[in-house]
Amino acid sequence: MKEQKIPYKIYLEESELPKKWLNLRAFMDKKPAPLLDPVTHKVMSAKDLSAVFCDELAKQEVDDTSKYIDIPQEVRDFYKMYRPAPLIRAYCLEKALGTPAKIYYKFEGNNTSGSHKLNSAIAQAYYAKQQGLKGVTTETGAGQWGTALSMACSYFGLDCKVFMVKCSYEQKPFRREVMRTYGANVTPSPSTTTEVGRKILEEFPGTTGSLGCAISEAVETATKLDGYRYVLGSVLNQVLLHQSVIGLETKTALDKYGIKADTIIGCAGGGSNLGGLIAPFMVEKLEGKADYQFIAVEPASCPTLTRGVYAYDYCDTGKVCPLAKMYTLGSGYIPSSSHSGGLRYHGMTTTLSELYHQGLMEARSVEQTSVFAAAQQFAKIEGILPAPESSHAIRVAIDEALKCKETGEEKTIVFGLTGTGYFDMVAYQKFNDGVMGDYIPTDEEIAVATAKIPKI
Amino acid sequence: MKEQKIPYKIYLEESELPKKWLNLRAFMDKKPAPLLDPVTHKVMSAKDLSAVFCDELAKQEVDDTSKYIDIPQEVRDFYKMYRPAPLIRAYCLEKALGTPAKIYYKFEGNNTSGSHKLNSAIAQAYYAKQQGLKGVTTETGAGQWGTALSMACSYFGLDCKVFMVKCSYEQKPFRREVMRTYGANVTPSPSTTTEVGRKILEEFPGTTGSLGCAISEAVETATKLDGYRYVLGSVLNQVLLHQSVIGLETKTALDKYGIKADTIIGCAGGGSNLGGLIAPFMVEKLEGKADYQFIAVEPASCPTLTRGVYAYDYCDTGKVCPLAKMYTLGSGYIPSSSHSGGLRYHGMTTTLSELYHQGLMEARSVEQTSVFAAAQQFAKIEGILPAPESSHAIRVAIDEALKCKETGEEKTIVFGLTGTGYFDMVAYQKFNDGVMGDYIPTDEEIAVATAKIPKI
Repeated sequence: MKEQKIPYKIYLEESELPKKWLNLRAFMDKKPAPLLDPVTHKVMSAKDLSAVFCDELAKQEVDDTSKYIDIPQEVRDFYKMYRPAPLIRAYCLEKALGTPAKIYYKFEGNNTSGSHKLNSAIAQAYYAKQQGLKGVTTETGAGQWGTALSMACSYFGLDCKVFMVKCSYEQKPFRREVMRTYGANVTPSPSTTTEVGRKILEEFPGTTGSLGCAISEAVETATKLDGYRYVLGSVLNQVLLHQSVIGLETKTALDKYGIKADTIIGCAGGGSNLGGLIAPFMVEKLEGKADYQFIAVEPASCPTLTRGVYAYDYCDTGKVCPLAKMYTLGSGYIPSSSHSGGLRYHGMTTTLSELYHQGLMEARSVEQTSVFAAAQQFAKIEGILPAPESSHAIRVAIDEALKCKETGEEKTIVFGLTGTGYFDMVAYQKFNDGVMGDYIPTDEEIAVATAKIPKI
Repeated sequence: MKEQKIPYKIYLEESELPKKWLNLRAFMDKKPAPLLDPVTHKVMSAKDLSAVFCDELAKQEVDDTSKYIDIPQEVRDFYKMYRPAPLIRAYCLEKALGTPAKIYYKFEGNNTSGSHKLNSAIAQAYYAKQQGLKGVTTETGAGQWGTALSMACSYFGLDCKVFMVKCSYEQKPFRREVMRTYGANVTPSPSTTTEVGRKILEEFPGTTGSLGCAISEAVETATKLDGYRYVLGSVLNQVLLHQSVIGLETKTALDKYGIKADTIIGCAGGGSNLGGLIAPFMVEKLEGKADYQFIAVEPASCPTLTRGVYAYDYCDTGKVCPLAKMYTLGSGYIPSSSHSGGLRYHGMTTTLSELYHQGLMEARSVEQTSVFAAAQQFAKIEGILPAPESSHAIRVAIDEALKCKETGEEKTIVFGLTGTGYFDMVAYQKFNDGVMGDYIPTDEEIAVATAKIPKI
């Protein structure tokens, strides 16, 4: 442990980068519930899952005993191109807030996909290539995952078909061009190219789409094409596993300077970034070695943890994907169209759901105008224009730091800054023009949506 | 000097960051020619320049004797938020090209302005604040400079008025929103808000604008408003001075690993990034301590060095700015509207012009479809989507590396990757759709444009 002034940015050496991913579930006494077949309701094995997922990824999906899993050399080589992500001490933000709190953020936006999504995309593309596949299909909401997967597929010479949630497709035309530059094929969802898409369009002609619906279309396409599998950018266990590089790097950087975090904050859509960020810290908490406060931040317009139900539910609107036991608003829940950007998913990854259920993690929901106010404040002070998703974590980090100002506590707050907002300027424009709205679903709306959750 | 494997990315420690800027002119025996008053044609003093520029910047503008100038602590603190910029070993690109050359690039895109421009913006905003000014005016072409200045002004609480070249304003609506998010006021140029703008619009009603014209509008606005000065993102000596952090960091990183560059390549519009990158290396060349090949890369549609004239010329279309002795295509030269992005300036900073004239630096011009092909190739292999401007340097770096493949030479090539292309997707879309054109001005067009250069 070095005793020295903590720099603005802590960069690990190449030799300090993780060589193994951390599988958080393997450390849990009470495991998250397994995935069930959507028709038979039987527990799904790796073999069952391999009809949809790559073989190796299907194995990772059901593995809740291996505590660490080797990162393949090819993936580590790719990581070296854009990692380590810096752990940044927010000296300027602390000063501006006048808080005694020490604020750090792990910045995952320094790559062309603009977010942490690349961490899992490159792993999934690697396993697809290893299996000799022609290509993969996927969905994307805010567009970060689609971009990340396009980059990863281009690197390994795989075809990439992306179903992009329609409202994002329309709000982010340039996202599409980045994906095309990387050679991907991008279709707005719901589309007429799939059965499930046509069915949804018939039922809801004006729909702006949802992640759940785009997932269904991507899965259908993968299963109908020879040499293709479906890949997913969040929610799944395998994605949490790959995203553990975020937390592992963060912990190594903190340890290097003898820093002990008190509060760890992340935005939560499907939960992969937060799950990855907290993984090694949660292990310490589970093992009784250290205590941490973990806060998942979600949009008030899609309040999965704070207002959802803990139950088995479909992962997609079309009900073709496995059932997962998770906090959910119902697979038919679609957030108000006034909602900008990602974090639109109706459920939450099973691991975080179970940890939340066990009281090991907290959750907060925040309204989007307050999120954009925090985003703008952060951009002006720290010089990084954050993604709307990431700004949910900024909002709560600032709130917590301001509480410390009241109490005089010198808490160490660490939050995940998952990405940049360069492709979210339509949303920023709404905020700049003062026409951005907030939307909080009524209890009745939540009740209607959750009533459709199957009774299993 | 450490003997070790060179990592993918070399990050300097905070303690290794430059504390002084390097003033390249001070090392030259034959200095670049001084600026002249546009009316009297007399050599301009710092005092003369201070009507338009901040006092301290006016001093820097005429200082050709101080070899090093202290970087103010406030500027160094801001630099720490986004610097050091990594020096990246392009292992993947080398492998893909099958070249024995070793390729490095200094990546300046890891900040919200998306380019190196922030290095000078924050310095200029600092000096404006120190002088007690209310705000500054400027022009922007591709939008990188305007964004950088908006960020810098927001940090120091200064008002910021940006005149944005019309074709960029239209191609990059989201750039405007980033600047607005940072509180700047953005006007497409030519505009009706200035005398010079109205005059140009009358003469050329359909014009898509030029940097030279936007400069005139910004200067006029600054001189008419109380408590405002004009600031500029390239061309000027002061900007080259601030941009020397690029070269100083690059040299420290190379020295740290005992690497000797053979060829150093940069794109050149006004010349500030290239001037900054080569500064400490050129000093070694001037002092006979080491030899380097320097290559300035410019667009074939705006071939200032390769086809321009070395003469005193106006720095702006409206002829309100000082006269500079430089390679120029004439202040009325406007590149074809098929030209995408920056590097549209008719002249070249006086220092690089003089070095080129003395044969100490080479220049190449490249066509934009070949530039975008290199950009796409680089994006796919190295995972960074480059700005069109930066991609000019990539084009020539790849060409040089392929030459090494022919000859078997193990040259060390260093190039400047000045920024990212996230706001250039309209241009990428043209390229993706196969509708991007090249334009090379005819000899007659060049002759017509250069004939208007004043005889001084």
